[in-house]
Amino acid sequence: MHEIGRAPGASELFQLLRGGQVRTRAELASLTGLARSTIGLRLDELLALGLISPAGDLAVSTGGRPPVQFTLNAGARVVLAADLGATHATVGIADLSGKLLAQHRERASIDAGPEVVLQWMVEECVRQLKSIGRERAEVIAVGIGLPGPVERSSGRAVNPPLMPGWDGFDAPGWVQQQLDVPVLVDNDVNIMALGERAVAFPGIDDLIFVKVATGIGAGVISSGTLQRGAVGVAGDIGHVQVARGLDIACRCGNRGCLEAIAAGPAIAEALTAAGRSVADSHAVISLVKQGDVEAIQAVRQAGRDIGEVLATCVSLVNPAVIAIGGAMAQAGEHLIAGIREAVYTRSMPLATEHLLIVQSRVGEDSALIGASMLAIEEALSPERITAMAVSA
Amino acid sequence: MHEIGRAPGASELFQLLRGGQVRTRAELASLTGLARSTIGLRLDELLALGLISPAGDLAVSTGGRPPVQFTLNAGARVVLAADLGATHATVGIADLSGKLLAQHRERASIDAGPEVVLQWMVEECVRQLKSIGRERAEVIAVGIGLPGPVERSSGRAVNPPLMPGWDGFDAPGWVQQQLDVPVLVDNDVNIMALGERAVAFPGIDDLIFVKVATGIGAGVISSGTLQRGAVGVAGDIGHVQVARGLDIACRCGNRGCLEAIAAGPAIAEALTAAGRSVADSHAVISLVKQGDVEAIQAVRQAGRDIGEVLATCVSLVNPAVIAIGGAMAQAGEHLIAGIREAVYTRSMPLATEHLLIVQSRVGEDSALIGASMLAIEEALSPERITAMAVSA
Repeated sequence: MHEIGRAPGASELFQLLRGGQVRTRAELASLTGLARSTIGLRLDELLALGLISPAGDLAVSTGGRPPVQFTLNAGARVVLAADLGATHATVGIADLSGKLLAQHRERASIDAGPEVVLQWMVEECVRQLKSIGRERAEVIAVGIGLPGPVERSSGRAVNPPLMPGWDGFDAPGWVQQQLDVPVLVDNDVNIMALGERAVAFPGIDDLIFVKVATGIGAGVISSGTLQRGAVGVAGDIGHVQVARGLDIACRCGNRGCLEAIAAGPAIAEALTAAGRSVADSHAVISLVKQGDVEAIQAVRQAGRDIGEVLATCVSLVNPAVIAIGGAMAQAGEHLIAGIREAVYTRSMPLATEHLLIVQSRVGEDSALIGASMLAIEEALSPERITAMAVSA
Repeated sequence: MHEIGRAPGASELFQLLRGGQVRTRAELASLTGLARSTIGLRLDELLALGLISPAGDLAVSTGGRPPVQFTLNAGARVVLAADLGATHATVGIADLSGKLLAQHRERASIDAGPEVVLQWMVEECVRQLKSIGRERAEVIAVGIGLPGPVERSSGRAVNPPLMPGWDGFDAPGWVQQQLDVPVLVDNDVNIMALGERAVAFPGIDDLIFVKVATGIGAGVISSGTLQRGAVGVAGDIGHVQVARGLDIACRCGNRGCLEAIAAGPAIAEALTAAGRSVADSHAVISLVKQGDVEAIQAVRQAGRDIGEVLATCVSLVNPAVIAIGGAMAQAGEHLIAGIREAVYTRSMPLATEHLLIVQSRVGEDSALIGASMLAIEEALSPERITAMAVSA
């Protein structure tokens, strides 16, 4: 009967068990309306796949043989998560609840090109699997974050300014050839938004994560869904024009772009132009931590510039939380204070009354956790569970 | 067994039939995995409710008695739709496919207060039902658009600047007491976005509808879902600050707000200040239609100001379509040209490559159709169908 539509059953049962609740056969039959015979077949499939286990505790029985209960087996499989940044890369292994079982971060240049970077990622994955005693066949999906725009439909980087060799490269296809599982690729800021929400704000459905580092970008979660937009470039706020910077040229070819004025390198350049010798973002952060007044003023002004853009974003999508992450967030309250100043000055009271503007609470792990979330969502989707059950 | 969870079955079947497809019992069993006995019971419920009908054409049979087919009965029930504007109100009756069966528009001032306006709406509803020969009991939901911010959770207007007496008033509760069905209230621009998408862009998942009239506001649809934001004020872009207007005070208490510079009354005032006598938005539109160069220039500049704000919106949510509606959209291509000029100058190529910026294709009916969509979505949701089946 499959020619008419999707094969039903196993996936629906599994989605009910993913919530963390323990269920009996009778409960599953009642919740789904599936025939008892269908329930039995589908549970056998999920048990054979190892995705569910009989739970330890026995349910309160109505007499006779106690009913068997079932629950999600978070340790049944693992996903590979990677955050491939401009200068550093992090690779990790997570279980089906998103818990990191292993991770490794090292200096790695994205401009070594896709084959070199992805080959390293796959080898690192194999090393980590060995170190935690898991098999390659246990990896059921891969989530990867890249530091540039990624086309939604193909998972390919599109005109990424910092990534020579990656433009149009089929990263999902390349990795799939090596590991033979679904590979999801997204913008690094998008996966940071997923990670921030999963760990720090699980009940929040409207959140903007802003990464302030070498560039500036945002990940937008609205109504509980990560928004990619029509072609996958939602959140690309680094090239919005801000009033203060109309005489500053941006590498994109336009003038007055937010990231040409308020990202880490721009702050360093502005301080250098004012007679200080400030090499890069890290030098700016050091000066701020030493209490240097000029550096603090420059960071606060960058915050105001970012806040000018975020005020419009607040009016448009009305988030409950704005989390600020990326290297420059280490400049602490000075950046946040500038952002708050501009947003609260310019946005309508109703939109800011309960708005939280905070430093990322997850910090460095947000990208890796988000990449694992991306992989888990795909791997445990109804369609994939059905496909696994059919092919098993 | 209902104590464990929701009663399953009827709603799932109905959602399958809503797509407009005709289905047999065997197809429904195959698509849902429900037991044949369950299918029979649920179809009986939906037939008893009148929401589905046996379809006219006979399916291709495999021999023996031809299988009965079922389809959505769009005429089974109706919804009441209302667009209550600042100076005019429109009320209509639509079937379950959103087709308008009756409508009436008249001058009505929202500042007469909620009881007066809503009482008129209910009476108008009764008149229209009579005129098309339908019963009051056939109305299964009400959708209402209001010209101000509406709190998502309660459906109450919150600090609406143009609506004395409405602040915090329980409009859904008041109407529900009269008509005893679910009542959905939303911002007028949100329902215009729903109507525009339903009629003109059904395949588009990322759309911004911008209303330019006495004020300026937007309805944002992302990933196919109308976005209300954390407290229901998503799309409220009328008070975003624009560079050109820093010396112009807005009625909100801030300076340089978009609608204080680029809405209809602002354009009329600017032309009057330049020595012309231009009473209001309608006078501006007349002048533009007569080819008056100063009026055309003023409208085009308003377009650029709106485009300056929309450029940031484009970067944040990456829409496929921006539709411009409201009274000032009647100024035609001059407003759109200014908007396009600013958006294409300021946004990144990837976000604008396939972006369509157009005049609303639905025009005046978009709000009423959107209000009926709001009511239909609620009335035909799985939860409501289940509740109807249980209480029937």
